[in-house]
Amino acid sequence: MKKHSLSQLGARAEDSPISWLMKAALDRPQLISLAAGFTDNTTLPLKITQEIFNRILGSSSKGRPALQYGTTQGDLTLRRLTARRLYSLDFPETSPENPPVSSYSAGNIVITNGSQQFLYLLSEALYDPGDLILVEDPTYFVFLGIAKSLGMQCRGIRMQSDGIDIKHLEEQLEGLRDSGGIRRLKMVYLVSYFQNPTGRTTALDKKKQALDLIRKYESHAGHPIFLLEDAAYRELRFSGVPVASILSLDPHQERVIYTGTYSKPFATGVRVGFGVVPDSLLSTILRIKANHDFGSPHLLQKLMGEVLSGPHYESHLLTIRRRYLRKSRAMISAMKKFFPESYHWETPEGGLNAWVVLPRKRRTGLKSRIFKEALNQNVLYVPGSLCYAEDSSRLKPNHEMRVSFGSASEPDIREGIRRLGRVFSELG
Amino acid sequence: MKKHSLSQLGARAEDSPISWLMKAALDRPQLISLAAGFTDNTTLPLKITQEIFNRILGSSSKGRPALQYGTTQGDLTLRRLTARRLYSLDFPETSPENPPVSSYSAGNIVITNGSQQFLYLLSEALYDPGDLILVEDPTYFVFLGIAKSLGMQCRGIRMQSDGIDIKHLEEQLEGLRDSGGIRRLKMVYLVSYFQNPTGRTTALDKKKQALDLIRKYESHAGHPIFLLEDAAYRELRFSGVPVASILSLDPHQERVIYTGTYSKPFATGVRVGFGVVPDSLLSTILRIKANHDFGSPHLLQKLMGEVLSGPHYESHLLTIRRRYLRKSRAMISAMKKFFPESYHWETPEGGLNAWVVLPRKRRTGLKSRIFKEALNQNVLYVPGSLCYAEDSSRLKPNHEMRVSFGSASEPDIREGIRRLGRVFSELG
Repeated sequence: MKKHSLSQLGARAEDSPISWLMKAALDRPQLISLAAGFTDNTTLPLKITQEIFNRILGSSSKGRPALQYGTTQGDLTLRRLTARRLYSLDFPETSPENPPVSSYSAGNIVITNGSQQFLYLLSEALYDPGDLILVEDPTYFVFLGIAKSLGMQCRGIRMQSDGIDIKHLEEQLEGLRDSGGIRRLKMVYLVSYFQNPTGRTTALDKKKQALDLIRKYESHAGHPIFLLEDAAYRELRFSGVPVASILSLDPHQERVIYTGTYSKPFATGVRVGFGVVPDSLLSTILRIKANHDFGSPHLLQKLMGEVLSGPHYESHLLTIRRRYLRKSRAMISAMKKFFPESYHWETPEGGLNAWVVLPRKRRTGLKSRIFKEALNQNVLYVPGSLCYAEDSSRLKPNHEMRVSFGSASEPDIREGIRRLGRVFSELG
Repeated sequence: MKKHSLSQLGARAEDSPISWLMKAALDRPQLISLAAGFTDNTTLPLKITQEIFNRILGSSSKGRPALQYGTTQGDLTLRRLTARRLYSLDFPETSPENPPVSSYSAGNIVITNGSQQFLYLLSEALYDPGDLILVEDPTYFVFLGIAKSLGMQCRGIRMQSDGIDIKHLEEQLEGLRDSGGIRRLKMVYLVSYFQNPTGRTTALDKKKQALDLIRKYESHAGHPIFLLEDAAYRELRFSGVPVASILSLDPHQERVIYTGTYSKPFATGVRVGFGVVPDSLLSTILRIKANHDFGSPHLLQKLMGEVLSGPHYESHLLTIRRRYLRKSRAMISAMKKFFPESYHWETPEGGLNAWVVLPRKRRTGLKSRIFKEALNQNVLYVPGSLCYAEDSSRLKPNHEMRVSFGSASEPDIREGIRRLGRVFSELG
């Protein structure tokens, strides 16, 4: 008798590093975790949330619908407010009454359990085992868990400081056209704002070039190829200039898909995310969502709708942006002080993460001396190698690390970086 | 060029009747929906929820963790309270200090977005396209949507008033053994308490016989076969006697899987459900859950933990049970008054649904004259045929209907049943 009854998907599913890292942080309170993607604890919106729940639940006309099922697609008010917000982020100086493009419609928005669920639904809608996706090299590692379990093949596109290397994208598309592999290509995935893990933001011009390239090569695929923009960290910008989304580049939203979330900018314990889906995929995504849960918790959608319709959201964003700016500066200045001169990093302009590039010979992976000694000294980081897709066409870099300033306090950030510095010099 | 890029799953996914029915009810306020599985609006726990959110969010030691990510598996306090509750429901007279069986462990519980998400995760973990499941005939129709999209083959087991016909289950297992089909059989699915759609409860002895049969035939499968008990309506018992769950029948929880929810007994807008998973499947389910959303919204889990740890849950249950008893009686007495004598139904002892069996020649499906005329008269029911799996070994019955007393008010229940009675007599 076989030991198990698992499906192929079940057998392919691997332990997510995020589960392990989250658990490690929760289990060892003495650990300084620069690994977990938690957000800042001290600025969580307790008062706002309490006030709004009192407003909702203190009235039976608001409270009853909030405690009842909603629809599979999600609360219409929240979808409208989300569409309007996306529009004003992309066109801050245009009045919403005169939209230059029509890609900002509540009808194309699906509310999900964080943007993570949207990534899953979309992947299920598009991918059969063996189908191909182009991802950034490195990319968001939990997405790689989805890809692995669904049997998706990933190819990495090299990154530069302002997003993917467009030349490398074109080389990959050419290669796939020539090999015929492009017939399995369904999507290009960009984590475009303060990327997890590198903290980098993709320039608008690069998004446009990527979209143009996809359109150019699409005829060889024999089916539509989509450009997916994951904007989970977009609202956490604390310096630099805003960048418009890919929705601004595709007036009828034929090939672009966008996902965002209120988890990180508002509260991770609330987990309300969303996707903006082209007409051609909408009904399929909704059908799969209906099978998953026929709609995300209505109460949290009503909460976010109230938050967005008043001044609270913007004022909360100001608070957390100031906070993350301070924390990121604390981290960068500690790295300058404690890390060797041959190590490199960029100064983040948003998000929760910094990315440290060590000399090539210094290994940072889960089995490396650096990782083990760091754990011994009670400090945890995300090994860079976890963020690279399985792609046999290149060696997987193993000399980088993601360090997060989201959750740790400023003293802990300094102490964590100091400990890492000590590990580096001890193993020097 | 192909018109779409969909995966096989995406192409198989069908519009869920539940989405359509929920939307119809929301879109047409003048409609009396005896179709949507909404719960009673007037007894939704607004005050309890408000009080508990004030307690949680008024304290930073409780509020901050609630607004932050939790773990993939779910809040430990909620899992412990859930394990204890399941134990006390199954063994009301035994002290939890002396458990006769060990199947009630917080370590085996996974918190999900309603029990629906658990059904999805479990199906993904076990099912490849073409694999086989035995379901009740009729069964929960949203599960049939999952089955369809994952390419699962379903076979129906005939129902009696106290659950599946054990003789028919054995015949099916024998047939599958003889044909070799049993090698694709992974699970038997029972909606065992006040079943959706029939309202029937499976006798404990039948669950035991089903489990014994599964064990007897399992060696022919070459892998474990599981018995899944969906207890979504268990807590909505308003008459009759309690029945223990299958967890009580499998002391080491090797072959039984249980799913329940706080959505229906507490608030559907909260959507906190759970599964109790054997050790052999736990890590796989958690890996898939991590890919879906790495954990359900923590705030709602903390809410449910507080609800369960005080007197609120029991007092709320008393309120809604009284309410559903009254509503079910209103429905039954209206059916006695307005439905023809040749129509049959059973008196529900819990849940939200009654099941009406018409004479065989009267069609009730979406394309039937009865359904269309009912919509014309602004009353909606769930056609019985939607609740039957695709199973070519029998004709799909098309002369039944599910009518729900969950959401409609008592006057609307009476008026809805009266209108249906008028439809029957007009088309008589």
